Amino acid sequence: MKLVIVGGVAGGASAAARARRLDETAQIVLLERGPDISFANCGLPYHIGGEITDRSKLLVTTPERLRERFRIDVRTRSNVIKIDRKAKTVRVHDLETGREYDEAYDKLILSPGAAPIRPNLPGTDLPGIYTLRNLEDLDRIMDRLRANVDRAVVIGAGYIGLEVTENLVKRGIETSLVELADQVMPPLDPEMTAPIVETLIRHGVSLHLSESAESFETVEGTGPNGVGVKLKSGLMVAADLVLIGVGVRPDTALAAEAGLELNPRGGIRVNQHMVTSDPDILAVGDAVEVIDFVTGQPSQIPLAGPANRQGRIAADVVFGRMSRYRGTQGTSIVRVFDKCAGCTGASEKLLKRLGRPYLTAVVHPLNHAGYFPGAETMTLKITYEPETGKLLGAQAVGGAGVDKRIDVLAMAIQAGMTVFDLEEAELAYAPQFGSAKDPVNMVGFVAAGRLRGEHPQISLDQLEAELNATHTAPFLLDVRTPAEFSLGSIPGAVNIPIDVLRDRLAEVPADHPIVAYCQVGIRGLLATRILNQHGRTAVNLSGGYTSYAQRRTVRDAIKRPI
Amino acid sequence: MKLVIVGGVAGGASAAARARRLDETAQIVLLERGPDISFANCGLPYHIGGEITDRSKLLVTTPERLRERFRIDVRTRSNVIKIDRKAKTVRVHDLETGREYDEAYDKLILSPGAAPIRPNLPGTDLPGIYTLRNLEDLDRIMDRLRANVDRAVVIGAGYIGLEVTENLVKRGIETSLVELADQVMPPLDPEMTAPIVETLIRHGVSLHLSESAESFETVEGTGPNGVGVKLKSGLMVAADLVLIGVGVRPDTALAAEAGLELNPRGGIRVNQHMVTSDPDILAVGDAVEVIDFVTGQPSQIPLAGPANRQGRIAADVVFGRMSRYRGTQGTSIVRVFDKCAGCTGASEKLLKRLGRPYLTAVVHPLNHAGYFPGAETMTLKITYEPETGKLLGAQAVGGAGVDKRIDVLAMAIQAGMTVFDLEEAELAYAPQFGSAKDPVNMVGFVAAGRLRGEHPQISLDQLEAELNATHTAPFLLDVRTPAEFSLGSIPGAVNIPIDVLRDRLAEVPADHPIVAYCQVGIRGLLATRILNQHGRTAVNLSGGYTSYAQRRTVRDAIKRPI
Repeated sequence: MKLVIVGGVAGGASAAARARRLDETAQIVLLERGPDISFANCGLPYHIGGEITDRSKLLVTTPERLRERFRIDVRTRSNVIKIDRKAKTVRVHDLETGREYDEAYDKLILSPGAAPIRPNLPGTDLPGIYTLRNLEDLDRIMDRLRANVDRAVVIGAGYIGLEVTENLVKRGIETSLVELADQVMPPLDPEMTAPIVETLIRHGVSLHLSESAESFETVEGTGPNGVGVKLKSGLMVAADLVLIGVGVRPDTALAAEAGLELNPRGGIRVNQHMVTSDPDILAVGDAVEVIDFVTGQPSQIPLAGPANRQGRIAADVVFGRMSRYRGTQGTSIVRVFDKCAGCTGASEKLLKRLGRPYLTAVVHPLNHAGYFPGAETMTLKITYEPETGKLLGAQAVGGAGVDKRIDVLAMAIQAGMTVFDLEEAELAYAPQFGSAKDPVNMVGFVAAGRLRGEHPQISLDQLEAELNATHTAPFLLDVRTPAEFSLGSIPGAVNIPIDVLRDRLAEVPADHPIVAYCQVGIRGLLATRILNQHGRTAVNLSGGYTSYAQRRTVRDAIKRPI
Repeated sequence: MKLVIVGGVAGGASAAARARRLDETAQIVLLERGPDISFANCGLPYHIGGEITDRSKLLVTTPERLRERFRIDVRTRSNVIKIDRKAKTVRVHDLETGREYDEAYDKLILSPGAAPIRPNLPGTDLPGIYTLRNLEDLDRIMDRLRANVDRAVVIGAGYIGLEVTENLVKRGIETSLVELADQVMPPLDPEMTAPIVETLIRHGVSLHLSESAESFETVEGTGPNGVGVKLKSGLMVAADLVLIGVGVRPDTALAAEAGLELNPRGGIRVNQHMVTSDPDILAVGDAVEVIDFVTGQPSQIPLAGPANRQGRIAADVVFGRMSRYRGTQGTSIVRVFDKCAGCTGASEKLLKRLGRPYLTAVVHPLNHAGYFPGAETMTLKITYEPETGKLLGAQAVGGAGVDKRIDVLAMAIQAGMTVFDLEEAELAYAPQFGSAKDPVNMVGFVAAGRLRGEHPQISLDQLEAELNATHTAPFLLDVRTPAEFSLGSIPGAVNIPIDVLRDRLAEVPADHPIVAYCQVGIRGLLATRILNQHGRTAVNLSGGYTSYAQRRTVRDAIKRPI
């Protein structure tokens, strides 16, 4: 068996190591266009800010290691320019020597990855404008930073854009962040991004939402290669460095040219064994189309974990083990200064777009026991099936402990668990780590209570719709303390604190729908229980005033770029 | 409906709040012997060390809150001394006034908790000897600490004992920790406790394993009420304060006297709806017998999370909703200085004791990407079914990220997931939070590889047995580097580094079973793959040299108390 692997990062390197473990005698050739294999893509931004001081730490493994330990014929700076499927050879261009040669294969695994999208705008090739995919890109950016860089523009507020922004700010660079969408972190539902927006603003980032770059031009008076970024709104932002992080595109010209089946977005189509339309060619990683584990839809979700899993599976299949890839949930996380945000499964906006039935539940609990010092608030939101309670997705944002809840809920999604299972989850409690009722339990209570009819709720979306339609405008009841109420409330709300609600029931109309709310939803629940048992028709505002304020924070950030 | 609840902490308080949400009109009486309800048991040790500075933080909720918000008739300092099941009344002794009276109930929920065991030893009632269950106990200990306390003895190295030890040391008190078992943290398998043992020793704790107190006596020359603790070995340890934390016993004299069915250990027997042998009496919390979710065995597992869940369920059942308790997994965690240890489900020693078939897998991964600063090693061990791969239990010890993996695996156990599912878990990866191959994936690879026959393994136990039986003693092959080998190895091992193993195959016997090992198991796996494909019969030592060294650390701690 001769196995040729094209691409030596994540999926390719995993496939190579796994292949050797499965077969000592196979000939395994790993062809990589760049100078490095298996580098830490996800660490690149942190060398910019200096958190990872030593560049060599970003090399996860070396060609020498794969050669010595795994007896893999690693050839770096070797660009595969053509696949001859009939002859079962690849044409290799040795970038060192310029030589071209054919390499035969029995099985071929493609792991070409995805390349940053560089929008075709006027001036897009000016010096000073960068993308960040590999160590060579990083080196170019670091070179630039050694000059006098005072101001930067980052275009795109997804994972890479946010991480580079944080790291530029940590270097003392005045940074503007420009995002086409009306929110940062597009995989999340908008209101969930509020803590990220707040921390960006608190750290001095100029945030431009619903905004885009129209052109780039050289400007005077900035750094060595000053770039002016002209925005759609007409604003011109001058910068010494521009980083474009607007997404990636499967790097599949080679596969396309070979006639392998691609999807319209350029992703290589594979079956559950990672085999392409050619039975002797497999493909893995960011370049392939995957099935979204929750929605069942074909999708493209570039993530390191899935790429590694796919690499293992492809090697299995090459050596006759019919392992299957179960699909991608899109579990991901990003730290932005002192906050972090993560998600897994389907967001509310995705389910809405697909027209799938869903419900949501939102809580704002502490990450660990409130009586122990250092507790931080998080916001945790889930989506679930109205009929069965099956968990469809989860998002969390906050500080410590966000990653844990996302991982716990990622397992729940993988297992097909329901919100009733979340109520009963038995998680580790000591005051440093959680609470006797963990955030996962809390969000389970809220969702399951709704399905059991104990806890009628209204979402922010629904409330807004009802407030706009005056004929159905509900009686808005704020059951917080007067002190809380005075710090901000939903316009039109009447304040009757929960502890005196039973005594002041006469003030609550009996012939009108009522929306009760408190700060996070707990007192609001009790209020609806009291009211509905006293002949009223009340629902609790999901997520309470905190969710309302979070949505307002995000909207304000759109209206007023600073 | 008149509901009377006996006991106002955890389960009792949860039941009361839930009951009110379910029924506005019910009469709910909460009787609590102590002065406080719903205090933070799990936080008590941290007031000793000063991490929780403000005692009032330990009051999670107040009687006033339950009265105002939930209209619950809360009566503290009210000791229930008798249940008349026929008359459906309880006899209450008001500890303030001395008055006794009968309180009628339609339904009764018992939440009496468990009391610290105070062994009946000579001198056990001397001043200066304490247990820690509630705020009154804490106040007594704090009083004592205001005097001149230089030395302390803690008896029992379970959760409470370890937490109190840490906090006494943080106050600068020289502390001896005495444990009857041959390990700290009895719920864990012995070798898993090594990092806890190391941190205790590093922080100056005198650790006495396989040791017990025989008697207490007043000694001269210590603090105001100096106590001498005479140990079984004959050693006498003088202390100004002794804390006994050797476990708890269900506080069920009341239930026993009323003729409710108890188990031999005094736990109240309940059905899955938390109903006792009397259909009008329910019981919840540390006082009840639960079903171990994994083994199906009746058990007693005092934990706050389950107590809260049971309280909710009992209230549901009282008001006609037939909610069920699914059993207890025993998910728990403890921080000890800079380390923490947690577990969920069945340990190896429990499964061995029950005679159940099981396999184990052990890994020693980093908590997050090694290239990002601050990564810490953890040890993660699972138990699983040999036939199906179904996960039975998990234990983790280390620093940051231990709690996350325990919770993730707790969900997996709840869902009935297998080690194959762990391989495919899609967890959140950014370099601050995890790795593209998370520790959960890693332990899944090890276990699933074994079941697929790709990764033959031997456990430490088996290796020891084989090394002791000389006729089958295997060829021990250490595939680490010479530098690693020189720092310590398993006696009798031959060192052939993995990178040259293929070249030095002739040195490895073809007619003899081989046990390969490396530092953590990864190179050992590759070695077994190489050897078995070259006609040898090799297995990999589970957990590698690290597990071996951990076991030695624990054994050394038994032999040499310091």
